[in-house]
Amino acid sequence: MIFIVQRKVMPLKDLLDPQGKAVMGGLQNLGLQNISDVRIGKHIDLQVEADSKEAALATADDAAKKLLANPVMEVYEITVS
Amino acid sequence: MIFIVQRKVMPLKDLLDPQGKAVMGGLQNLGLQNISDVRIGKHIDLQVEADSKEAALATADDAAKKLLANPVMEVYEITVS
Repeated sequence: MIFIVQRKVMPLKDLLDPQGKAVMGGLQNLGLQNISDVRIGKHIDLQVEADSKEAALATADDAAKKLLANPVMEVYEITVS
Repeated sequence: MIFIVQRKVMPLKDLLDPQGKAVMGGLQNLGLQNISDVRIGKHIDLQVEADSKEAALATADDAAKKLLANPVMEVYEITVS
């Protein structure tokens, strides 16, 4: 079976997010004054062939640890659909 | 009230996603052969001050159209929490 695993990788809350700050500045220049914070991360969709949802999740978690997220600077969430 | 608006911006399905292809190659080199496709997009969290959920959603949609997504190449989804 093929599962779509969605992964959201965001910079840690305590760290400065320069990309988000730049976008917030841009939005405020465009007149959207009521946006008080912007944080930008990555969204990764993996198409995984696995026997079960659990196996797909394990593969995705493995991928995350090996390549897709840097635990020193980022947090990640995984959802399977 | 302050709402957190989450926005997911992904490249259109019909377009090639070179970043995703590169990551897929990397994962396969690491021995994860059962991943058949990877697509990478952006995840943007906006902190919006608004009177209601609908107003927050409207602001986020406005921001998306003005700055955050390129409709020629990307699709986006918005959720408010």
